This record gives sequence, structure tokens and C-alpha cells, in this order.
Amino acid sequence: MIRSRICEQLGIEKPIFQGGMAWIADAKLAAAVSNAGGLGIISAMNADVEYVAGQIDLIHQLTDQPFGINVMLMSPHVKEVAQLLAEKRVPVITTGAGSCTQYIELWKDSKVIPVVASVAMAKSAQRAGAAAVIAEGQESGGHIGELTTMALVPQVCDAVTIPVLAAGGIADGRGMAAAMMLGAEGIQMGTRFLVAEECGVHPVYKEMVLKASDISTIVTGRRFQASSCRGIKNKFSRNFAKIEYDPATTAEDVAQLGAGALRKAAVEGNKDEGSFLAGQISGMVNTQMSAKAIVDEVYNDCERILRGASQWVK
Amino acid sequence: MIRSRICEQLGIEKPIFQGGMAWIADAKLAAAVSNAGGLGIISAMNADVEYVAGQIDLIHQLTDQPFGINVMLMSPHVKEVAQLLAEKRVPVITTGAGSCTQYIELWKDSKVIPVVASVAMAKSAQRAGAAAVIAEGQESGGHIGELTTMALVPQVCDAVTIPVLAAGGIADGRGMAAAMMLGAEGIQMGTRFLVAEECGVHPVYKEMVLKASDISTIVTGRRFQASSCRGIKNKFSRNFAKIEYDPATTAEDVAQLGAGALRKAAVEGNKDEGSFLAGQISGMVNTQMSAKAIVDEVYNDCERILRGASQWVK
Repeated sequence: MIRSRICEQLGIEKPIFQGGMAWIADAKLAAAVSNAGGLGIISAMNADVEYVAGQIDLIHQLTDQPFGINVMLMSPHVKEVAQLLAEKRVPVITTGAGSCTQYIELWKDSKVIPVVASVAMAKSAQRAGAAAVIAEGQESGGHIGELTTMALVPQVCDAVTIPVLAAGGIADGRGMAAAMMLGAEGIQMGTRFLVAEECGVHPVYKEMVLKASDISTIVTGRRFQASSCRGIKNKFSRNFAKIEYDPATTAEDVAQLGAGALRKAAVEGNKDEGSFLAGQISGMVNTQMSAKAIVDEVYNDCERILRGASQWVK
Repeated sequence: MIRSRICEQLGIEKPIFQGGMAWIADAKLAAAVSNAGGLGIISAMNADVEYVAGQIDLIHQLTDQPFGINVMLMSPHVKEVAQLLAEKRVPVITTGAGSCTQYIELWKDSKVIPVVASVAMAKSAQRAGAAAVIAEGQESGGHIGELTTMALVPQVCDAVTIPVLAAGGIADGRGMAAAMMLGAEGIQMGTRFLVAEECGVHPVYKEMVLKASDISTIVTGRRFQASSCRGIKNKFSRNFAKIEYDPATTAEDVAQLGAGALRKAAVEGNKDEGSFLAGQISGMVNTQMSAKAIVDEVYNDCERILRGASQWVK
């Protein structure tokens, strides 16, 4: 058994989180991961309070294990959703796209675990009372920072005393073992769970990830820092990159460009017009498996690799 | 002792390479690293054959251990330098900025180890007869690709059978242990050795690295892919980034911008006009030590961490 403080804190068996991917991570996928001993996380994305309440009801029907909700702090519905999560006493709340400080008091019955992209964000989260942080490198899919997992995780571990989970660039037991060598006490994976059998994302999206190689992703939005986003190269993302660097393009234009594109990918499977967010490890994700099989494989491989690590030392 | 195939292949004690940083990695630094049991590497950068010959003579006076020369394949002097390295039977040749395939036959008495940034580059190097590859993530300083170390190393390890060294984002024993969990058989560090006591780079350069935080580096040249370069944020690099995205700027303009800036940093210590190339782990590099102390610390910490890895598993 691989045990770390995060397992004790949350009452989970395996320190493996499933990332709260917008339009992708719903109650069904999250329940499958939680039932496998990891922590399933539902994305509250930009959705209204009714949607989130429905998802919480659903996951309670599907599992009695701890689960999380990922709150996108820039959501137009964030205030009502935050209130709902407090009322529902959701076990774990992960946050992205902003500072969770103002909600920590409201969420006193939940473990709050922000996604951080720098040492300063991690320190601020700890000061505010976060239970742990997820240090996410820019190799991950979706909205990203600048630091990579390899550079970010040890620097965050040196800066805080709360548990650190590593995210970004992790697809298998090797990545999990590497993260733990850097000082992490657990991991979060997104892209790997995107192709889980229980994931309801459009089959075309899964196919894009399954067929991807190491160089299949591209970052768009870098010119206007705050919106850097990693996804699979297709007509949409190549066109985005082209327009982005057009002299006449403004930050507002870029914000407009992405509108609705994630839905087109995840729900409609529109190969050309969709935004297929995915991480650099897409090239390593080649098989569709159940969420339980993914959790077990990563966990068991990690255990085997950690046990064998001392064999390097002769 | 941490032993891997690369140690046997090269006749070195410790699988730790010192990166061949242009204007920084000379015979004195390389000899210190080789004498410490690692592999010191002299940068041939854009220099002419007389400079490189002089450096080879010097390192032979300073060490009887194996050493390497890093060849920048886009150097205007590459043909003469390549010939010289063959005549001198340099033990190890690492290559960057291009494909080394055409030189492998000429360098038959050397171990050729290209720096690669993708699976395709690694496969091509193996096919051509490379002894190993250095898989370098974009968190590293200087010229970089797109993939990060965490995502690149396992994908390269799955694609080739020759030894893989990991570079980028590695500053200490944790990083080395993580690299080995990903499948690497050794590491290359640049930034950490830049502040070694034996490194003759200008003191201002060392100070910039020693004072850097996790978010102190910036990538310039991304708009015109082939020239992406990571360095410390200063007047030069901020200005470069600004001009780069100016509508009127062309790829040639950008190439011009960087001319002489590395010399201004490394030789003159010009804080404002120099290009201070360094990796994202600059924030972890806080002490000046001898090359031997660096090699020993990283190696011993890695050994201790690998021995302790099985303690995670209860």
C-alpha cells in the first residue's frame, strides 16, 4: 500500500485524484474513480447551481466514498455554487482560475485543495487554510501556468508544509513514482481518465487522445498570458494560434475565439471546430480502460517501481 | 553506488553530465565535473577550431577522466570542428540544434549522444548509431523544445533501447531520483553547474541565478518556433518578448536581436543588455559550491532517496 497524509486527511485508499475537467468530469466518471479508491472530482465549470446540485445528488447515488467538486473561480455562477457546496458539505473542493482565499471560511466543512502554478500561490493557499495543494505543471491539458511539473513540485514542497499533489505530465506508475520522489504525496491525472470507459465525453474526443503522439499538443493564448491553454492540434487550435499573433488581435478577441469550442469538442465531437484540451502525455494514452483499471494499474506500477527503486543502488 | 549502463559505456563513476552551456562550459568547469566522477562537457558553441583545440588540450592537462564536447550543429565552424573532434578522438560528443546523423561515421571513435526534444528525434538518433540520448525538457535554460521533462522522458524511454539521460528541471537529488523513476539512466544539469566555483562565468550571471525565484525565467523566440530560448527575466529578455510580438517583426529581426547578448551576459556581466540563459530550477539554486560538492550532493541525495523509496510502500 502506498499511503500518504492525503489518504488519512480525505479518507481515501489511494492518493490518485481525477482532474475536474470542464464538460468532461461528471458524477459518473467521478464516482467510478472514487469507487476505485481514488478521488473522483466533478467539474462545476461555468455551470449554474442546478446543474451542480444535480451532479452532487447523482454522485451520492453512485458512491459512498469521498469525492470532490472543482470550482472554476471565474465562473459567472461561482457565488451561488460556492454557497451550495457549503450547504451540501462536499467532502473535497478543488479550485482553479483564481484565489480561493475568500471562500475558505464558507467551506469550513470541506477540505479545500487549490490548484497552484507557483510557489507564491501555494504559500498563499496554505496561509488561507487550504488542506493541501495540487501543483500543476504546464504539460497538463487545459488552462496552464508557466512552470513545469519537474520544476514546480520540489519548489512548492520546499515552500509549504501541507501535502502537495503533483499534476501535469503524469500518465502511469512511472510518473506517479517520479512525482513522489520530487516530494509529492499523491497525484492528479486528467487526460488519462478522459479515455476511461465511464467517461461520457464524445467518442471523437477519446479517439483524438488515443491517436495523439508526443508532439500532438499546442498551447494557445500565450500572447495574452492569463489564458494559456493546452490542447490537441487541429483546425481550431492552429487557427487560434494564427489569429492570436495577428497584429490586430486583442485580448478580448482571443477570449471570444474560444467561446463554445470546448462544448463542441466534448459534446458534439466536432473534429475541426472543437477545442480538444489534453496534456502532453496524450502520446502515452493508448488504451481505453475502466476507471478502476486505470487507478489499479497506475497504483500497482507505482508501488512496484518504488519497491524496486533501491535496486538502482548497488 | 548508483550504476547504470551509461556509467559502463563511458567509464564514468556517476551518471551526472554537466550541460555544454555556450560561453559558460569551458575546460576548467568540465574538468572539475569529470574529476568529481561525472561527465564534464565543453561547449564548442560558435567557436572556431583553434578555440576548441585549445580547450581539448587544456582539459587533458586538467583531468585524465572522460569528458565531452557539445557541438552546436548550426555553428558556422561545425565542419572543421567535427573533423577536429574525430582527429582528437574525444571520448564523448553531445550535439544540439540539428541532426547529428551525418557525423556519426566520422565520429566512430567517440560516443555520440544527441540532445533530443521529441520521440522522433530520439528514434532517428538511435537508428543513426547514437550511444545514448539526452531527453531535454523545455524547463531547461537556453534553446528549448516544447515537451517537458516529465512528459518527454518516459515517451523517449518507450521508443528507444539505448540509454536515456534526462535534462531540464533537475537541480538536486530529488530531480535525479524522479528522472530515474521515469526510466532515465542518468541526468544532465546545466543551471546548477553554472554557479559552481570552478565556473568562470561573470559573477553577475551567477548572482542572477542565485537570486532567481521559481517564476524568474521567460521564454523568448516562441513566435518563430525554431528559436525558443529560456532565460532570466531582465531588460533584455522583456524587451525581446515585446519586440517579438510586434506586428512588423520578422524571424530575421528576432535572430538579429539576440546577437552578442549571450557574450554580454557571460563575459561582461551586463545586467540589462545580456541574455542570461537559465532553467526554471534557478529558484532552487541558492548556493555556490565546488563542482565536486554539487556532484556529491546530488548523487548522495539521490542514492538516499532511492533507498528510501520503498518506505512509501507500507
